[in-house]
Amino acid sequence: MAFHIVLVNPEIPANTGNIARTCAATGTHLHLVRPLGFSTDDKILKRAGLDYWYAVNITYYDSFEEVAEAANSDARFFFASTRVTKNYTDFEFRDGDYFVFGKETAGLPQALLDAHKETCMRIPMTDKVRSLNLANSAAILVYEALRQNDFPLS
Amino acid sequence: MAFHIVLVNPEIPANTGNIARTCAATGTHLHLVRPLGFSTDDKILKRAGLDYWYAVNITYYDSFEEVAEAANSDARFFFASTRVTKNYTDFEFRDGDYFVFGKETAGLPQALLDAHKETCMRIPMTDKVRSLNLANSAAILVYEALRQNDFPLS
Repeated sequence: MAFHIVLVNPEIPANTGNIARTCAATGTHLHLVRPLGFSTDDKILKRAGLDYWYAVNITYYDSFEEVAEAANSDARFFFASTRVTKNYTDFEFRDGDYFVFGKETAGLPQALLDAHKETCMRIPMTDKVRSLNLANSAAILVYEALRQNDFPLS
Repeated sequence: MAFHIVLVNPEIPANTGNIARTCAATGTHLHLVRPLGFSTDDKILKRAGLDYWYAVNITYYDSFEEVAEAANSDARFFFASTRVTKNYTDFEFRDGDYFVFGKETAGLPQALLDAHKETCMRIPMTDKVRSLNLANSAAILVYEALRQNDFPLS
């Protein structure tokens, strides 16, 4: 049993580090689409306090299409965005689902959202913020998927 | 309608900043119990990128007891800890509930947990991590409370 988090062009190492920690805490696989806004050189990761990097199953890609091609043929992809209307709690998540997040400053490319309209979802929030922190968004979504599946954390 | 987050002696400004952003996104009140591991001087906050600080209802205290005394007499306090067994999704949260978190390195004082055994809760996780990031834990709990109450984000 495992969920998947895909970060498309993440910019801020502390966010990816926190997401790696959430992945380690939940057995979630992490998929990183280059370019990344930081080096994954050992020394840089250590300096950024990314202690959990090596407890996580991480795969690197050069495009989202590569992620989709590498996934099981029945894998389902869900796209997080502030520019869509369907609430994340309206979906029923299951083993093997992928949660896709865009870069901190701009979110996912509009073309990717347009191509997957049925599985775009938002986390509800007030109009006082533009978005939640990326790592917080990922944690909220993974834990909702875990909750729906009775926390399969063996 | 509002939930409350209480941070007892938080140490890392970026975590409290991310939690302030989550509070702004959800209309949640933030209660900070001193000592804090950082200055709330305007310049320091700005340098730490705590952009949402002024969009949030923040109150400062010198002890947890002060928070409890200032709350409504029917307020309920829930204590997040990795050292307890009851899952956070086993509780039914309602308007006005307080979620209490300890410092990043040590969690809440054992005496506080012992005094509130019935309302201590944990976020399930694998044994690969000691804990989740503090801001992620707060986001997971607030969004579970919101979900249970049909996202009252007016």
